[in-house]
Amino acid sequence: MRVAVLGGDGYCGWATALHLSRKWHSVAIVDNFARRQWDHELGVQTLTPILPLADRLRVWQELTGRAIKLFVGDVTDYDFLSTVIRSFEPDAVVHFAEQRAAPYSMIDRKHAVFTQVNNVVGTLNLLFALREFQPDCHLIKLGTMGEYGTPNIDIEEGYITIEHNGRRDTLPYPKQPGSFYHLSKVHDSHNVMFTCKTWDLRATDLNQGVVYGTMTDEVAMGEALINRFDYDEVFGTVLNRFCVQAAIGHPLTVYGKGGQTRGFLDIRDTVRCIEIACLNPADPGEFRVFNQFTEQFSVLDLACLVQAAGKKLGLTVEINHLPDPRVEAQEHYYNAKHSKLIELGLEPHLLSDSLLDSLMNVAMKYRERIDPAVMLPQIDWRQARNQRLRSSREAAPVIQSSLQVVGATNGKNNGKRRGNRRVRAVS
Amino acid sequence: MRVAVLGGDGYCGWATALHLSRKWHSVAIVDNFARRQWDHELGVQTLTPILPLADRLRVWQELTGRAIKLFVGDVTDYDFLSTVIRSFEPDAVVHFAEQRAAPYSMIDRKHAVFTQVNNVVGTLNLLFALREFQPDCHLIKLGTMGEYGTPNIDIEEGYITIEHNGRRDTLPYPKQPGSFYHLSKVHDSHNVMFTCKTWDLRATDLNQGVVYGTMTDEVAMGEALINRFDYDEVFGTVLNRFCVQAAIGHPLTVYGKGGQTRGFLDIRDTVRCIEIACLNPADPGEFRVFNQFTEQFSVLDLACLVQAAGKKLGLTVEINHLPDPRVEAQEHYYNAKHSKLIELGLEPHLLSDSLLDSLMNVAMKYRERIDPAVMLPQIDWRQARNQRLRSSREAAPVIQSSLQVVGATNGKNNGKRRGNRRVRAVS
Repeated sequence: MRVAVLGGDGYCGWATALHLSRKWHSVAIVDNFARRQWDHELGVQTLTPILPLADRLRVWQELTGRAIKLFVGDVTDYDFLSTVIRSFEPDAVVHFAEQRAAPYSMIDRKHAVFTQVNNVVGTLNLLFALREFQPDCHLIKLGTMGEYGTPNIDIEEGYITIEHNGRRDTLPYPKQPGSFYHLSKVHDSHNVMFTCKTWDLRATDLNQGVVYGTMTDEVAMGEALINRFDYDEVFGTVLNRFCVQAAIGHPLTVYGKGGQTRGFLDIRDTVRCIEIACLNPADPGEFRVFNQFTEQFSVLDLACLVQAAGKKLGLTVEINHLPDPRVEAQEHYYNAKHSKLIELGLEPHLLSDSLLDSLMNVAMKYRERIDPAVMLPQIDWRQARNQRLRSSREAAPVIQSSLQVVGATNGKNNGKRRGNRRVRAVS
Repeated sequence: MRVAVLGGDGYCGWATALHLSRKWHSVAIVDNFARRQWDHELGVQTLTPILPLADRLRVWQELTGRAIKLFVGDVTDYDFLSTVIRSFEPDAVVHFAEQRAAPYSMIDRKHAVFTQVNNVVGTLNLLFALREFQPDCHLIKLGTMGEYGTPNIDIEEGYITIEHNGRRDTLPYPKQPGSFYHLSKVHDSHNVMFTCKTWDLRATDLNQGVVYGTMTDEVAMGEALINRFDYDEVFGTVLNRFCVQAAIGHPLTVYGKGGQTRGFLDIRDTVRCIEIACLNPADPGEFRVFNQFTEQFSVLDLACLVQAAGKKLGLTVEINHLPDPRVEAQEHYYNAKHSKLIELGLEPHLLSDSLLDSLMNVAMKYRERIDPAVMLPQIDWRQARNQRLRSSREAAPVIQSSLQVVGATNGKNNGKRRGNRRVRAVS
């Protein structure tokens, strides 16, 4: 099977490309290195020292004898994308090539507009390219569990059957996304659903939970293949960040009460879910939605698990409850279905002590690369413009006042004009 | 009350601006004349010879003594829009400034991307400008009944209470939009809802039905104030188009069976609904949705009404069932609630024989301006690229083959590359 992985240089994309390649699929990575660029912009870096993509691909070929094709370009450029589709002729396209951080989208107007335009236009371009040049190709689109928000009823997989005034219909599950990023994924979902109906495209929307972990069987084959490990407040995912904080003796940063409950999964399950989707394509005209996670945890649950794992290693781990920079329910009902991928053969890697140990070991190994300041929240959902600082030296004193603003909550009318871009503080 | 009407040179916008001005509100129009530009692009024109906006505004002031301010610019330009908000300091913003034609959005990829980016970015800019500079201002956002699609249950006003597995919640009503344009409105709705929750903005989303008519009390005050009357396949609304077709003895173009049922309203009710929304603002943090229409009709119902009205005038009116260029249910359940505006005081102008007579009289009066060719559908939802022709002379023979393509329905893989832009045929 010929599979194009858009965004194949990113966290999930890289692990997926290697996994599919090892399983003898013919794989092409399509990437413009935007993810690396955002690190430069934010003044952060992955904990693990990842190699340039060309080097990663060379090592992969040396180790396995399998070549992964590379197309360098931007999916919002239709000439580029349609050329890729016509020349590679994929049987499946896995679409990770979006800006995927909620805090990034909440920095200010430019980042909000960028996120929505980038994600929506990239996906529209892909839909048109498939319709025009590869209409039988299976689109595997990464969505997010965050599209659903936290309704007070069970979350189903994409659709819900509603009885209302004596009639009945199965309709798209109502969406209540919580950031401009999550909104962009909801926009995508509606766009993809429409083209499946109108053009008979076939698509699987994977509403993925929060991913943790860094090792997959393939990544473990060589240090040069190491995957990203993001722990900063913008692109870092919560469990990775907690392990890094524990490893260096910093308090875990729980936002608010920590009762925010979400679906989580190990990156080893991410790559397996994608493979399962590839091997079991949607039908023509079908817009299929799978909830891609394996367990639910509250943020405080995770903090306590990391605290306990730290104790076993002789670490004292404190938990700090910071004012929540996000606008979200801090305690709520949450019960999301996730049986469809299991029915297709997924055998979950549930969160274990050994996984937590291995995450903390990764954090210990690269501890000299850790910048504690980038883990503290600086982007306040209530503000229209956030001034984010980029290094420990300049950020330390400012974060305190930033958090006070967050705590004050009544941010209305505080949005004084500070210039259109994030500015670097004069230290 | 200070009211900014974004898109105030368009069909609904112009009528609204005059109505609010006559009711002694302080009104500003914000427009970039995109709507006039699209007429040039498509090779069509309003049946009624509208004046340039500066002339319209001068006449309005001469007739009534009331000045309407004018800001010329594009709402996707944040510097422009935020300057308008800061200098005019509106109590309410009525946002009509979007690309509003479903067929236009379905021409090809560029028109789809333009429609979504233009509409989404314009609205995001407005949300940020209000948050930063006028946070108590009431946003009155024009949505469309087309956001809901045609579910098999009753359509509520924005939200639906769902009982599911023994629990209950009131959630956003599920959306099933039927074109890239309708999708853009769904994207907007989600974005606006999020900012009401996150920034305490106050917004009313008016999910408007299909508007008909051209006269309001204010427009009737002088020939120079005449409103647009669009009858072409792209921007024309169905009842206006049928009246024009009847007036010149052309068959009414019903798409498919004509069982497509929608909500409709008289433009006199549009302006009154906007006024009611202005006078009864949403609360801070509230995202309120009203379904803005007064009656439901199927397309075939309307065709029969026009046929009967024509008969009274001695006209023989035929009804042609063309292959449906859209992908939509041609027969379906439809029952949409619309009580909230009535509860706030709307007294509907229901569709009457006299209104039909007056529409046909407008069509007769300007019959020398009618181009019959622009009423026939040339934009096929099933194609990724549509080649639209712009005049009777060049279009007549081509439309036949275009319709055959539509009728064939299995358009998949027909999307041969024809160049990125609509091209003018060599006649």
